[in-house]
Amino acid sequence: MMNPQETEISTLGEFGLIDRLTKGIELKNASSLKGVGDDCAVLNYGEKQTLVTTDLLLEGIHFDLTYTPLKHLGYKAAVVNFSDVYAMNGVPRQLTVSIGVSKRFTVEHIEELYAGIRLACEIYGVDLVGGDTSASVTGLIISVTCIGEGDKDKLVYRNGARDTDLICVSGDLGAAYMGLQLLERERTVSKESKDDFHPAFEGREYILERQLKPEARRDVIEELAQAGIKPTAMMDVSDGLSSELMHICKQSNVGCRIYEERIPIDYQTAVMAEEFNMNLVTAALNGGEDYELLFTVPLTEHEKVASMKSVKIIGRITKPELGYCMETRDGAELELRAQGWQAFTH
Amino acid sequence: MMNPQETEISTLGEFGLIDRLTKGIELKNASSLKGVGDDCAVLNYGEKQTLVTTDLLLEGIHFDLTYTPLKHLGYKAAVVNFSDVYAMNGVPRQLTVSIGVSKRFTVEHIEELYAGIRLACEIYGVDLVGGDTSASVTGLIISVTCIGEGDKDKLVYRNGARDTDLICVSGDLGAAYMGLQLLERERTVSKESKDDFHPAFEGREYILERQLKPEARRDVIEELAQAGIKPTAMMDVSDGLSSELMHICKQSNVGCRIYEERIPIDYQTAVMAEEFNMNLVTAALNGGEDYELLFTVPLTEHEKVASMKSVKIIGRITKPELGYCMETRDGAELELRAQGWQAFTH
Repeated sequence: MMNPQETEISTLGEFGLIDRLTKGIELKNASSLKGVGDDCAVLNYGEKQTLVTTDLLLEGIHFDLTYTPLKHLGYKAAVVNFSDVYAMNGVPRQLTVSIGVSKRFTVEHIEELYAGIRLACEIYGVDLVGGDTSASVTGLIISVTCIGEGDKDKLVYRNGARDTDLICVSGDLGAAYMGLQLLERERTVSKESKDDFHPAFEGREYILERQLKPEARRDVIEELAQAGIKPTAMMDVSDGLSSELMHICKQSNVGCRIYEERIPIDYQTAVMAEEFNMNLVTAALNGGEDYELLFTVPLTEHEKVASMKSVKIIGRITKPELGYCMETRDGAELELRAQGWQAFTH
Repeated sequence: MMNPQETEISTLGEFGLIDRLTKGIELKNASSLKGVGDDCAVLNYGEKQTLVTTDLLLEGIHFDLTYTPLKHLGYKAAVVNFSDVYAMNGVPRQLTVSIGVSKRFTVEHIEELYAGIRLACEIYGVDLVGGDTSASVTGLIISVTCIGEGDKDKLVYRNGARDTDLICVSGDLGAAYMGLQLLERERTVSKESKDDFHPAFEGREYILERQLKPEARRDVIEELAQAGIKPTAMMDVSDGLSSELMHICKQSNVGCRIYEERIPIDYQTAVMAEEFNMNLVTAALNGGEDYELLFTVPLTEHEKVASMKSVKIIGRITKPELGYCMETRDGAELELRAQGWQAFTH
């Protein structure tokens, strides 16, 4: 992995590496008073409320560097945290990033990773304000914490869904999961074949991008605000629609009924599922990593939500005794199950 | 490592494990509006300024579980972040903790770790408000982010030291480093001997505690406030006095002169250094992990600072052209060097 033109991390040392990675970072948000370079970052939120979310990404568990470019990985690590802040109806403002790197990584590798993080920060208007770098005996470790702000009366929690509310989801589901399946297959094929291997990625750019370079739905949050809609409950879809919907229902003490035919699925996702002989709806319900917004709104907002292009109404909230249910295309009722995140059992 | 009465993490799954670890957590700070259980924690700092600090601790780099009890490790992981907030003259208020655990850890192990984190939170009045748990292929990974608050006009940065300021340090230095040396030696001895091994820890409790269960100097911050002293610059000593003092001098564009004979060193530290045939002053200057406070105050505060029991004046700030210098006991001048953190080169 080490290229002779690249720089061993030991030639810079910790402080040199941090200097190089954080050079030229300018703070853009008025709430960022002090960034990298002291014991803490200093933020000022005046009368706003402060949001904090954090994520730990581990090589071999959350990402595989054989098919994940480091720049994409950095971009994704930042964006998935922004997504958590938007899912509260907030605005991400600051980011801290700590990384652990083993000897097989050079300074240029870490710069690539940081280039992705900094690009995400630029696009979403977030300030990188701190973090640290450390050696690791085992591979790449990325820990990201995002701080955001929100108006007291506009934050949306998971526990506000009420009977008869509409269940909405943005974008489409299952694509990131099918992108991962494709990447895994091509990796296996590339190991078996020798010289002339060309991964079969043509016409599958969408699902690959959904896996490798997801975006957070800032646009949906802005659209909801413009339409004057405040969701009653909201989450981002990171573990899969089923799991997230059950979180909202449990915390709100309600049931739900969604309709299979209304679950938004992209054409490429469907083609890929068929090629892999996988159940398409299972992929959409349990695939995860979609980073779409799942939210509920009062029935009275039906017209407004129905006119939003990037949002689809997929069902409604029910009384708790009706459970968590999906009506299939042929009219049968299925109980939703949270597959969620099962890495401990694999 | 697995005990038959203990519980495999896979039997609980991610959400079950989080539920178990966060059960009974009560929020104590008015600024903690919402803790674990949504996309973000929600904090409210009104007119205060918000401090954020983060740390990533990796098995095999930052800790060794052969001699670090998990509860102590959790306690230390939290406290070192509190220390960063105090070093800004702030008060820590909230903590998020993400952990990655490999299969050799059971639920009970992680509960031990959390017991230490929660004990630290209780003692320092900090709310645990979020985080996540994840599988790891490689060992234990702990990522901690602490959020604190401070009054706008009371925060202390690293860049405020001025010529003629007094350089002060709390407690004593080098003990945590000597504790680590002792633990490393006993581990080596225990591997070589067979059955009847008893580590030689008697009379060395202080240096062991400094390594395994450090405290943050909240008391010094409170004492300074009571005495009406606002330091001109401040840091906590995590990488060693030399390195931290040079950070302050560089950021403040000043030089410094400290006196070897004034560096506070505990008796046990000195005995241990002699036993190991190590240079005592080097241990105190470069040992690290002391978590004492290093700060500068105007010369006019001399009397007040001199009367503080847990603080020692070790030198003074000079003009930048005088460099970073230590006067030894025999009157010679040594240039300070930042040994700092060198894990990348080992």
